[in-house]
Amino acid sequence: MKRTVDINCDMGEAFGRWRIGDTSDEHLIAHISSANIAAGFHAGDPNLINDTVKLAAEHGVAVGAHPGYNDLQGFGRRKISGSNKEIVNDIVYQVGALREFCRRHGTSMQHVKPHGALYMELAANPELSDAFIEYMRTTAPNAPIFCMWNSATYEAARLLGHPVVRELYADRDYDDNGWIVFTRDAGRPDPKAIARKVLRACTEGKVRTVQGRDIPIEFESICFHSDTLGALDIVREMREALVAEGIRIAPVSQILEQQK
Amino acid sequence: MKRTVDINCDMGEAFGRWRIGDTSDEHLIAHISSANIAAGFHAGDPNLINDTVKLAAEHGVAVGAHPGYNDLQGFGRRKISGSNKEIVNDIVYQVGALREFCRRHGTSMQHVKPHGALYMELAANPELSDAFIEYMRTTAPNAPIFCMWNSATYEAARLLGHPVVRELYADRDYDDNGWIVFTRDAGRPDPKAIARKVLRACTEGKVRTVQGRDIPIEFESICFHSDTLGALDIVREMREALVAEGIRIAPVSQILEQQK
Amino acid sequence: MKRTVDINCDMGEAFGRWRIGDTSDEHLIAHISSANIAAGFHAGDPNLINDTVKLAAEHGVAVGAHPGYNDLQGFGRRKISGSNKEIVNDIVYQVGALREFCRRHGTSMQHVKPHGALYMELAANPELSDAFIEYMRTTAPNAPIFCMWNSATYEAARLLGHPVVRELYADRDYDDNGWIVFTRDAGRPDPKAIARKVLRACTEGKVRTVQGRDIPIEFESICFHSDTLGALDIVREMREALVAEGIRIAPVSQILEQQK
Amino acid sequence: MKRTVDINCDMGEAFGRWRIGDTSDEHLIAHISSANIAAGFHAGDPNLINDTVKLAAEHGVAVGAHPGYNDLQGFGRRKISGSNKEIVNDIVYQVGALREFCRRHGTSMQHVKPHGALYMELAANPELSDAFIEYMRTTAPNAPIFCMWNSATYEAARLLGHPVVRELYADRDYDDNGWIVFTRDAGRPDPKAIARKVLRACTEGKVRTVQGRDIPIEFESICFHSDTLGALDIVREMREALVAEGIRIAPVSQILEQQK
Repeated sequence: MKRTVDINCDMGEAFGRWRIGDTSDEHLIAHISSANIAAGFHAGDPNLINDTVKLAAEHGVAVGAHPGYNDLQGFGRRKISGSNKEIVNDIVYQVGALREFCRRHGTSMQHVKPHGALYMELAANPELSDAFIEYMRTTAPNAPIFCMWNSATYEAARLLGHPVVRELYADRDYDDNGWIVFTRDAGRPDPKAIARKVLRACTEGKVRTVQGRDIPIEFESICFHSDTLGALDIVREMREALVAEGIRIAPVSQILEQQK
Repeated sequence: MKRTVDINCDMGEAFGRWRIGDTSDEHLIAHISSANIAAGFHAGDPNLINDTVKLAAEHGVAVGAHPGYNDLQGFGRRKISGSNKEIVNDIVYQVGALREFCRRHGTSMQHVKPHGALYMELAANPELSDAFIEYMRTTAPNAPIFCMWNSATYEAARLLGHPVVRELYADRDYDDNGWIVFTRDAGRPDPKAIARKVLRACTEGKVRTVQGRDIPIEFESICFHSDTLGALDIVREMREALVAEGIRIAPVSQILEQQK
Repeated sequence: MKRTVDINCDMGEAFGRWRIGDTSDEHLIAHISSANIAAGFHAGDPNLINDTVKLAAEHGVAVGAHPGYNDLQGFGRRKISGSNKEIVNDIVYQVGALREFCRRHGTSMQHVKPHGALYMELAANPELSDAFIEYMRTTAPNAPIFCMWNSATYEAARLLGHPVVRELYADRDYDDNGWIVFTRDAGRPDPKAIARKVLRACTEGKVRTVQGRDIPIEFESICFHSDTLGALDIVREMREALVAEGIRIAPVSQILEQQK
Repeated sequence: MKRTVDINCDMGEAFGRWRIGDTSDEHLIAHISSANIAAGFHAGDPNLINDTVKLAAEHGVAVGAHPGYNDLQGFGRRKISGSNKEIVNDIVYQVGALREFCRRHGTSMQHVKPHGALYMELAANPELSDAFIEYMRTTAPNAPIFCMWNSATYEAARLLGHPVVRELYADRDYDDNGWIVFTRDAGRPDPKAIARKVLRACTEGKVRTVQGRDIPIEFESICFHSDTLGALDIVREMREALVAEGIRIAPVSQILEQQK
């Protein structure tokens, strides 16, 4: 039974004059505690990054860098078969860009959460996770990495002693292996069903898979996607359900601090 | 008569597998004191930035961010008519990326030098220079900006109290207004003629223009371009001429420190 | 007093998963006679181009190439200061790409209409217009170029004997010089006011400027923008007004054919 | 024993001001019969495509489109995991762009040869090859596709009745399965050893693998890479060896014509 949980959401995932989904970040920001801000490779441009970091800072929402594959057209949901070294350099570049906007707006980078196909590649590739974490330990030793509880990223971070945050995916399905069912388009899920699933995960530590089994799930942060249709209803229903149960919403850095 | 001068050079201005000019950064690095490292918009990719920052750090060469217009095809030598706000956001993004690689390799960012058409646009646009310097004062108050002595950038930096470094352009011509004659391709200049021009500027404070007049020139750093044909010969001749005259070569941060 | 007029609209101006405006091309397509399809530089990706050309072909709407500056982030509304030769090569590239999708879907390219800042640059730059038209005469001698009636492009096309179509801008304002007031964002104009303006231009050959004067206007095609808010209402009101007055809507190639 | 063979080479594989390898296309063009011209996604920009198509047309060298993955940084040698439909749309776009430059310079597109990781993906993916060939049959039914003799692309083209050309890779090694050993960097091979390998393949129809076995090889065209170090010496040695043996060099369209 959790007393405090983080709610994180991808933000700034537009580009130039274009938008995605039916919910603006301006509306979502009031309901979350951590924002993963797209860093320009899969989405986000310098103007949008600037405005989104500023928005998060003004609302007291913790900022995370959200690096992705260099794939605007595919929204970072297509894998690019680069070497581990290349992929980490792409991450360094994006994290640095994001941090500078944090510095500009008087906030700091709380965490790093890779995006889409890069998140999944890290989850499956221990050597890549090692290389990524080695970089993080050098330049951001206190910034937790967001990942799935059963991923190579989580294992590597634990072994190397780097802070790590496990996520519950509110608007994605799980399979019996505890992996999220990766999709390039999530449709419009039912907000109330999501709220029930999230609340159960917080109180019972269990989630039902697409195959119909209950599996244990461990997490410090709840993730939903701003480009999921109905995102604003989803986060409202989730918050309401959690608060009604006495569970507090707070940036994950506070939760990690309490655990020390 | 100068006792100490900085020599700066653009570095990491390749992309992917492609190169430019006939001189590799590995050869040039031993002869300069400050490196302006391309930050990915006009040249440079994350792998190259990583390797170039590492190279500079290993040689004790001071690192500067070298942001440009988002124009790989035109090498940042074409102006893009964005708003001042857009342009500064592009600079923030690139400076941040570069700083993260500095952090990774245990060095720090000494300075920022805008590239090509962006450098010239800043020189001519006081409002843009103000906006750029305002950003620098927030996130990098001690990092000097490189510019021309008679530019709007120099004026704005002095007025706002931000550290600033004026450059002598070794491999570019001057006109009677003291502006460099902007070119998208510089040909192959004579290294010995360049060395004479530079030495005279250091000892007499004068440079001859394309119209044949002598004009006064003030500077703390000498710039040449790594993509100028014969770049290695150019820097060798310059160094030899300067050292023979008893002038020391050092990163510009040391020169600014002495002036305090 | 016109008997037949073309209605053209920019289409396929999204990118990847992102959209713009509040109107889908699927709804607009039934109301227009010519589609200017974004060719990938300012908007449009190969998947979208494919689907948009197919959509136009299925609806019997004539297809035009809509090349722009290589500026996804600025939506082609920022000028890039390339040479005329560079700019024409960019146009050739985009026109060729678009034509191949026409060929694939059993239609042909009716016309070429440059986009945004490129359209305005051509209008103001006679040498660039000449170079553009020279290319068109080589590879597409029968494909009209869309432009403003008082532009360098129109003058050059007439002099060189290349087919040309003048446009009335439904959702943009005119100044006393007969130029449209260029904007990077058009707001949400009143559909009924636009319909009145268009009808008057068709019947009286006049348009009122932002300064309040009536100026003569000549055109064969009416343009509105799919990213203008309320675009679907705009085109419906226009069509209704025109049809009520007995004016027929048809692709501009038919109108040019009748004029021969 | 061959009487006529085609020599093909990738051309226009630079970008903006950057170059690759130590050989310019201007020197290579005199020695080849077919040029695969990079179409802008893995290399090549509109200016370079224009100049390279013009160069080939002036030398009577047959032009082929050389589409690749949208990966300038990785030179198209990294796979991007798009859907077959997406990949074919990317090919359509690039082929169309290239054809327009052919039209402009009074030549026609002889063939299409996919590049790098895209070539290999097509070789291994029958559904993708089918989709690609289906497109080619619609818009370019007489333009042969270049591929490996034992690839899915070759099988699919034969089954669908589309013209196809098999290649011998002069500057790449073969394994016992008859596949070329894919590399992102080929080093500097020995031109005389390559000439011997090519001559033997033409006269005996055999090639030695990296494992040391002789395997049969069938082909109509010999490929070498312009970015392989020493490319000019390679093609000179090859030509000399072939001509000394009485084998004629000609564009592959002539060879296919004779086979009818």
